Amino acid sequence: MVNKLVENIKRTGAPIVVGLDPMLKYVPQHIQKKAFAEYGETLKGAAEAIWLYNKEIVDAVYDLIPAVKPQIAMYEQFGIEGLIAFRKTVAYCKEKGLVVIGDIKRGDIGSTSEAYAVGHLGKVQVGANSYYGFDEDFVTVNPYLGSDGVNPFIKVCKEEKKGLFILVKTSNPSSGEFQDRMVKCDDGTDRPLYEVVGEKVAQWGADCMGDSYSYIGAVVGATYPEMGKVLRKVMPKSFILVPGYGAQGGKGADLVHFFNEDGLGAIVNSSRGIIAAYQQEKYAKYGEENFAEASRAAVLEMKEDIAAALANR
Amino acid sequence: MVNKLVENIKRTGAPIVVGLDPMLKYVPQHIQKKAFAEYGETLKGAAEAIWLYNKEIVDAVYDLIPAVKPQIAMYEQFGIEGLIAFRKTVAYCKEKGLVVIGDIKRGDIGSTSEAYAVGHLGKVQVGANSYYGFDEDFVTVNPYLGSDGVNPFIKVCKEEKKGLFILVKTSNPSSGEFQDRMVKCDDGTDRPLYEVVGEKVAQWGADCMGDSYSYIGAVVGATYPEMGKVLRKVMPKSFILVPGYGAQGGKGADLVHFFNEDGLGAIVNSSRGIIAAYQQEKYAKYGEENFAEASRAAVLEMKEDIAAALANR
Repeated sequence: MVNKLVENIKRTGAPIVVGLDPMLKYVPQHIQKKAFAEYGETLKGAAEAIWLYNKEIVDAVYDLIPAVKPQIAMYEQFGIEGLIAFRKTVAYCKEKGLVVIGDIKRGDIGSTSEAYAVGHLGKVQVGANSYYGFDEDFVTVNPYLGSDGVNPFIKVCKEEKKGLFILVKTSNPSSGEFQDRMVKCDDGTDRPLYEVVGEKVAQWGADCMGDSYSYIGAVVGATYPEMGKVLRKVMPKSFILVPGYGAQGGKGADLVHFFNEDGLGAIVNSSRGIIAAYQQEKYAKYGEENFAEASRAAVLEMKEDIAAALANR
Repeated sequence: MVNKLVENIKRTGAPIVVGLDPMLKYVPQHIQKKAFAEYGETLKGAAEAIWLYNKEIVDAVYDLIPAVKPQIAMYEQFGIEGLIAFRKTVAYCKEKGLVVIGDIKRGDIGSTSEAYAVGHLGKVQVGANSYYGFDEDFVTVNPYLGSDGVNPFIKVCKEEKKGLFILVKTSNPSSGEFQDRMVKCDDGTDRPLYEVVGEKVAQWGADCMGDSYSYIGAVVGATYPEMGKVLRKVMPKSFILVPGYGAQGGKGADLVHFFNEDGLGAIVNSSRGIIAAYQQEKYAKYGEENFAEASRAAVLEMKEDIAAALANR
């Protein structure tokens, strides 16, 4: 799957992932009205609204981008109905040729991690049959529990030719509370925890190689470009999923250090900045009805911003 | 909800939580047959099997225990159908007067963490209506992303009078890879990361007090009793959820340090050791058909083991 990700990036020339994180307040009124007219102001109505919204955005941008990243929490908040919309979104994006990164940040131990891996990336056995649950291509994983938590995911990735992005340094302001702590390392030096986790990601990824990159990647926030520079070197063969661009404050110029010399190795996420572009002054001219066109314009601008930054480095 | 947890523990005299982590291989053949006869060897069939299994165990033990802890991964692996069984299990256990700890180990940032909190503990707004998604009483949370990730959960807990158990030191063998790292603290000392996280839990919990305990608790594995002793002092007002008893190797004698002098402050989880007791030689006499009676016997034995350990300390 990491090979497909690389191919898609080369084809589109856009190392961009669109975060499909549909909060109801982003969904245009005419779509909410349509969904609520059919199902009422219910969980099913909300799920229908976010599905219609996603679909129109995907239809408008799928030819420009290699991948999408639905954030499962935004669906899970609507309970079962929301998760049905999540699954539908995953399946639809795959039909459109997109790589789907399920932003699920799961993490547990042993058989429990395996159950998550099976449910999101693999197949579960029921008697003589086996079934895919949510069937994403990649998922994000929280490493706090150590190798016992990550290895079951890696096992399923090997079987299914899928992949992971493991949280290393997250984009939020308080990510430093634990991730930046200086820790004593075996070689006698003190290094920040995120670097220690990054080294582990490189180790986990070493025997999970696609053609040019490992299918065990990392999450490093755009809001911490200097740390990205270090982590790029610590994990040369890992793809870095970079959240925090746009709405969270990251800019194109901040991103260059996340990429390798080959122009690959990173994929930059924007959620609100793309999917709710029509709510920004800059794209207001499209109007709420044409929200998906505004999203397309925002993708094109993001693509240019990153390309310019990479050309100028 | 922490007050209800304390009441339930006092009433039953058993600081025990039964982990409802139904793997299909634990589910007796006669139940699997019944479910598959109705729905086929499908995800729906599997979900029906684990629901029937859960229900019979809950019916057999609910009067003995204060709380249950369904592990959502074991349901999520069966996709949407599995999650319907999860929700049904949560609702049924609450009907029976049990406190329900959703072992979801979620964790993200800002609005995303809030969406998880809303989906699992609170209500989501849809137009003029609001709905509970999964509606557990407590959930487990992963702290790797720092305060930005935890505060949205705390906000919903305050609104809903619910609670959290935050991962501090997990029970698995490799939990030390990151959690035991010695980190430089502001006061110039070096302390393990789990202690730093424990201090944060105590801080987060300080303004979230029930009558005698905070509703912001911690997870500390039974397999690390010495660390439990330290963490008990670091977080005197936090309930500690203790996994790792029984099948993972923890014994009653290991548990005493997790409790306060008042005999409260900890709740010990056993999953496989209770729900699949009938598969152990010790309880084989019950037979597969009477698996729920075997579970009841295992709860009674666990209760005695812990009571004896607490009496002898």
